[in-house]
Amino acid sequence: MLIEKLKEGMSPKYLTVIASQESMEVEDLIEKIISGKIVVPQNNTYRLKEPCAIGQDLRVKVNANIGTSEDYPEIDKEIEKLEAAMEAQTDTIMDLSVGGDLPKIRREIRKNCPVPLGTVPIYEAATQAKDIFGSIVEMTPDHLFNVIEGQAADGVDFITVHCGVTREVIERLKSQRRLVDIVSRGGAILLAWMVHNDSENPLYEQFDRLLDIASNYDLTLSLGDGLRPGCLADASDRAQIQELIVLGELTKKCRQAGVQVMVEGPGHVPLNDIEANVKIEKDICQGAPFYVLGPIVTDVAPGYDHITSAIGGALAAYYGADFLCYVTPKEHLGLPSSEDVYEGVIASRIAAHAADVARGHPGSRDWDDRMSKARKRLDWQKQELIAMDRKKLQECLDEKNIDGTNVCTMCGEFCAMKIVSEYLSLKETPKC
Amino acid sequence: MLIEKLKEGMSPKYLTVIASQESMEVEDLIEKIISGKIVVPQNNTYRLKEPCAIGQDLRVKVNANIGTSEDYPEIDKEIEKLEAAMEAQTDTIMDLSVGGDLPKIRREIRKNCPVPLGTVPIYEAATQAKDIFGSIVEMTPDHLFNVIEGQAADGVDFITVHCGVTREVIERLKSQRRLVDIVSRGGAILLAWMVHNDSENPLYEQFDRLLDIASNYDLTLSLGDGLRPGCLADASDRAQIQELIVLGELTKKCRQAGVQVMVEGPGHVPLNDIEANVKIEKDICQGAPFYVLGPIVTDVAPGYDHITSAIGGALAAYYGADFLCYVTPKEHLGLPSSEDVYEGVIASRIAAHAADVARGHPGSRDWDDRMSKARKRLDWQKQELIAMDRKKLQECLDEKNIDGTNVCTMCGEFCAMKIVSEYLSLKETPKC
Repeated sequence: MLIEKLKEGMSPKYLTVIASQESMEVEDLIEKIISGKIVVPQNNTYRLKEPCAIGQDLRVKVNANIGTSEDYPEIDKEIEKLEAAMEAQTDTIMDLSVGGDLPKIRREIRKNCPVPLGTVPIYEAATQAKDIFGSIVEMTPDHLFNVIEGQAADGVDFITVHCGVTREVIERLKSQRRLVDIVSRGGAILLAWMVHNDSENPLYEQFDRLLDIASNYDLTLSLGDGLRPGCLADASDRAQIQELIVLGELTKKCRQAGVQVMVEGPGHVPLNDIEANVKIEKDICQGAPFYVLGPIVTDVAPGYDHITSAIGGALAAYYGADFLCYVTPKEHLGLPSSEDVYEGVIASRIAAHAADVARGHPGSRDWDDRMSKARKRLDWQKQELIAMDRKKLQECLDEKNIDGTNVCTMCGEFCAMKIVSEYLSLKETPKC
Repeated sequence: MLIEKLKEGMSPKYLTVIASQESMEVEDLIEKIISGKIVVPQNNTYRLKEPCAIGQDLRVKVNANIGTSEDYPEIDKEIEKLEAAMEAQTDTIMDLSVGGDLPKIRREIRKNCPVPLGTVPIYEAATQAKDIFGSIVEMTPDHLFNVIEGQAADGVDFITVHCGVTREVIERLKSQRRLVDIVSRGGAILLAWMVHNDSENPLYEQFDRLLDIASNYDLTLSLGDGLRPGCLADASDRAQIQELIVLGELTKKCRQAGVQVMVEGPGHVPLNDIEANVKIEKDICQGAPFYVLGPIVTDVAPGYDHITSAIGGALAAYYGADFLCYVTPKEHLGLPSSEDVYEGVIASRIAAHAADVARGHPGSRDWDDRMSKARKRLDWQKQELIAMDRKKLQECLDEKNIDGTNVCTMCGEFCAMKIVSEYLSLKETPKC
């Protein structure tokens, strides 16, 4: 296990590379991994081409969800989405497939995925239970843990486990009532199983079993938020915070076992509640990396949830969230296309970078300054090289809006850059 | 003049309508217009079909810029953009045309524009000066004021005037140096004129003349920020704040003259500087409505500046900005298409609404809750009626992702809503 090795003074080479990429001393990185402020998802049976670290003082990372549904079970489509996400430079991938031959799809994605790969094993356990026993609620705990172990053996780097959906949490949910109850698929499946079987969540009850698997494969646990709010009205309520408290307790158990852990968060959150959501996670979960889905700041804009989540994600990351799960324009409407995946990653990267700049992450603002200098010089070729999405810039320039290396069609001769360069020479004057 | 009339106890009927739309007592609205915290742009020679109020405690408003360039001078295209902006439900329109027959274009837009219409008269003055005298720097102050009066007579409701680009401000800019100097077209034109003619800004020097025209036509002045930062590196610098101080002084003069005034703001601003930018405007300009362009929170994402500005706009509005000028995906790249205009308005409305919800504007969250209830019921038809962009929702649904009024292709049988409804009845339990 990574933490164990680091405690013994052994540090894998990839940590040196990561530290250098992050402008962080490797000793500092190691100290933060040991203390649980940073995770480096990396299964010990599979060597990642592009590993990454997630957590305190690092560049904010972005995850792209891909995966089949029952209506669209084709592997090829998912490989296309994986490629789109990689082209848009996602930091990690999660395979959320629920349709088709799940192990085959996962292995194919793993083979083609150079970055950390995450899954939600309850999906495979539930689909198998449906196929074998006719219903997801007939799943057995042994079956679930076998699926988890199988996925770990396949080289998955991190898994979402909704361990905090406990009987206590569900009772609090019931006694409180919500506008949309539960929107997490994993949370809903576990709730159904628990209600039907009148039993505690096996991922909670047998948490040590989970820790054993995680230890064996150096699997990073991502403690899922099955009770994440699915609308603004349900944000930051007692049910959500009750689950977070349980996740805080489980975070402590992970640390005691030397298992890397991060904590997942909302969801749909009004702008004014985002800071509190980040701070309370950091407090309750002792600084564990916070992995947020969005958050989405309004419920009324389906078709634009890459934007509603970019707003929330930028703010969450600014306040300390470490890892943004992208949301595509198709969220709430259907399975995303490759184009949606691409757009989703870019929107999320914009949010992450805006937060990096605002948090003063070393080197982040330099990128903006390079772009602005090229813009000032009306140097379109340079801008194309620097832009977050070069392809998009090229498309726009190809629409003949640009006249060589000169002004664009927006302002034409009234280009402020051009006018000012002509009439105001600031070159010789002092800077600041 | 509106303020004069209100002080005399006369209140036009449209204020009652506006107050009702805003869930505000009409007396409160009137008091805030008189004190300058709210403006209602409405030329006294033209009756608007859909007037609106902008400022304190109101729904955050959105403006869409349209207008020709020298390369694309066609009126038809701009009318199409106007229609796209209206379809996306912009609150106001600004005509920034600099190509073709400007008076004709403006009148055509006015004829078709039911909402408040704004312009930047220096563009027309500069293009005419170029045509007549061969250069924008040969423009005369008389010519500029005649253009302003002509536009006011044509029924324009508010004008951007870069009165704060003074010699003092330019000296501070020169002594400080910037990464991209000036990016405001109006600011650049005035700077060129001032440098070439070694003279003070006529809009500043003859501000009383401007006040006279504004008084005659009940024109709302929007004090432009010619020194707005055009990149993160230049944000919140001495040059920008020096101009703001001048705008604060001019705001006071407007109020003394009973002229409605708002103040324009940045621009490119890192996330962590947005709150300060809003608060300092409110302090220096005595609570005048703040009209921001974006702000854009990173320079590196050309092609996505509707997103970079939605992030900044949501935050600015949350902290107190009253009026968001949209930014289209094409900003920094070329003149927007009708589609870009539509996307820009929607992105800006998302930002405005997210802020309305976060600020607790009466009734704003109800919209989200209605949407979430329809979502919970998997009632797609209802969602389509409620969504901010119905057309977009219909497009997505038409892609056959939706199976009648049932689950979508994203989760299929693993729809959390469906599972939870089956296994957890919360209907009879207490709410909160």
